[in-house]
Amino acid sequence: MTGREPRPNEIAADIDPAQMEPSAGLVYIGRVHSPWTDRAECPRNMVQARERQKTAEVLVDAAWRPALRGLSRFSHAILLVWLDRSERNLIIQNPAHADNPTGTFSLRSPVRPNPIGLEFVQLLEIDEENGIIKVDAVDCLDNTPLIDIKPYFASTDSIPEAKKSSQL
Amino acid sequence: MTGREPRPNEIAADIDPAQMEPSAGLVYIGRVHSPWTDRAECPRNMVQARERQKTAEVLVDAAWRPALRGLSRFSHAILLVWLDRSERNLIIQNPAHADNPTGTFSLRSPVRPNPIGLEFVQLLEIDEENGIIKVDAVDCLDNTPLIDIKPYFASTDSIPEAKKSSQL
Repeated sequence: MTGREPRPNEIAADIDPAQMEPSAGLVYIGRVHSPWTDRAECPRNMVQARERQKTAEVLVDAAWRPALRGLSRFSHAILLVWLDRSERNLIIQNPAHADNPTGTFSLRSPVRPNPIGLEFVQLLEIDEENGIIKVDAVDCLDNTPLIDIKPYFASTDSIPEAKKSSQL
Repeated sequence: MTGREPRPNEIAADIDPAQMEPSAGLVYIGRVHSPWTDRAECPRNMVQARERQKTAEVLVDAAWRPALRGLSRFSHAILLVWLDRSERNLIIQNPAHADNPTGTFSLRSPVRPNPIGLEFVQLLEIDEENGIIKVDAVDCLDNTPLIDIKPYFASTDSIPEAKKSSQL
């Protein structure tokens, strides 16, 4: 954990998941190799990431490479990553872009009780034998652990009408 | 783990994440209360789930309820759940609806090395004080552990042009 500076009006939970007995265990299945090696330069979301026009590569561990069969039929996928350099105990956060302190579950901040990131990516190339997937962009740091890959289905995952109201 | 029957031509990995030393630990932060109490009746995906026209409730543990502040501004959210009754070791699966055995990462099957499910839901009501969120539908079993809640952003998460090609 590199630790980010606390900001005014942030509130920690009474418990810290990083210090608790886990309810369940994750295994890393690979790594994401991204152009971003420190937090300051890392895009905050996928809109910013795509603007940088830099591709990224996912390296899947040998044991799981056969599970890539069929993925190349899909144009897009969802990568699940474990944001291993994030704090886990904040319930109220005060991001620079927000007007007011707000709850962790209304943010996509990496700081959350289980710091899982979702990367909605376009699949550019898949080398099943060597476990290498080239994607259009990611917004996570280089060497972030990979925990799952799911095909993206427009029928269930695309909700163009989803809205955020401006009312507090 | 209730165990599902193995099907012809399925292939297990050489390693079983359920038996391995975890790379990282998850903490449960609540539970999903759904109408589905056994696998046979559980919808296979969110399209099927919505057809049943049954709402579901998420119960968030007390420690994390303040983190719900601001979520009611969003029309939709992504629930991350831990599919605690799923096997974790299959790399090739042979689902009833597929033409051929295919890789785990080209399926949304609950059987995967880290059995995390994504539920793309509409938010109907949020009771922050009691940690209760009513959503339009879910496709997971009753009492499935909750591990995260993220607001859905159409700008990054909605990809209506995402395609699956019919070519093998």
